[in-house]
Amino acid sequence: MKAQDYPPAMRELIDCLCRLPGTGRRSAERLTLWLLQHGKTDAQNLSAALIRAVEQITACPRCGFYSTGEELCPACADPTRDASLLCVVEQPTDVLPIERSGSFHGLYHCLGGKLSPLDGVMPEQLSIPKLMERVKEQPGCEVILALGSDVEGDATALYLAEQLEKLPCTISRLAQGMPAGAGLSQADSITLLRAIQGRTRI
Amino acid sequence: MKAQDYPPAMRELIDCLCRLPGTGRRSAERLTLWLLQHGKTDAQNLSAALIRAVEQITACPRCGFYSTGEELCPACADPTRDASLLCVVEQPTDVLPIERSGSFHGLYHCLGGKLSPLDGVMPEQLSIPKLMERVKEQPGCEVILALGSDVEGDATALYLAEQLEKLPCTISRLAQGMPAGAGLSQADSITLLRAIQGRTRI
Repeated sequence: MKAQDYPPAMRELIDCLCRLPGTGRRSAERLTLWLLQHGKTDAQNLSAALIRAVEQITACPRCGFYSTGEELCPACADPTRDASLLCVVEQPTDVLPIERSGSFHGLYHCLGGKLSPLDGVMPEQLSIPKLMERVKEQPGCEVILALGSDVEGDATALYLAEQLEKLPCTISRLAQGMPAGAGLSQADSITLLRAIQGRTRI
Repeated sequence: MKAQDYPPAMRELIDCLCRLPGTGRRSAERLTLWLLQHGKTDAQNLSAALIRAVEQITACPRCGFYSTGEELCPACADPTRDASLLCVVEQPTDVLPIERSGSFHGLYHCLGGKLSPLDGVMPEQLSIPKLMERVKEQPGCEVILALGSDVEGDATALYLAEQLEKLPCTISRLAQGMPAGAGLSQADSITLLRAIQGRTRI
């Protein structure tokens, strides 16, 4: 028998770490050696945190943001929030940058993706029926479409706008234009086009 | 309550992943989101592999290479290996490249580090007494010092050579010179110096 490879328990850990995005075999080996050399505590904590996270973290039953167990997420559970403002985002991860900007105090709705017929993502795969339901329950609300400004994001916004037109709500979308702190020389032509088209009087 | 951060179970997982070497907060967030989006299996497998690795992997009681439980490592357990050749390395990880080169069929001894008085690594911290014992038990053996060619590696090799001189063994060290496939223009001056000093007749 040769010692050309690590013992089975190490190889299994390396294989599991390899599956993580952006982690190749060498990085997985390095992480494994680090975990074994740094005492049991770090590895045990990580192991327990992994199990806790996948068992406890769920999607908020109302908006689809991250939540714990059966509870509503912090935004939905907050009675001081403006229920007449509904911000529609692609993914739960999109909620955080908006919250951190401190500029929005309404509720969210996470679609779970954007329309992409080529990848098989049709309206039924997204949380669109639930969005319609929420808008119906809140007549006169404003729906802010905060989707990405790529082709699929635009197509999804257009589709949603068509569907929402029939309901008693106003529809808006995020302003498009120059990002803060950027010079004209760095802006691509589509961004510039939209910034010129959407120019505002000062 | 704001939704400015992830639920506690996600934050804990992010914190644990942050502790891994080379993993910043953004990478830890990305890994956490990936683990939550890819179903429970990957996270559960990783969690179990972590616990198995830290619980099962031990140092071989004879040579210090990675082993499972109380067993000898594959090299020490192999009766066909040449017990009169003892290769001394710094770390258990140094065994693998030697094994993979296919050029050595003796036994190993992992010191667990190299002498570095400034960092508080004195001979007592390394597995040197055990090495002396093994050499005494195998009179006439050859001890190959396969330590790094940096200052501490050289100092450790010198110290070991002095200690081993009193015992009935021959002492050798890895050849120093040009690495395979390297051009002269890439070689540093110390490597070149050693390659010239150690030149061999052809």
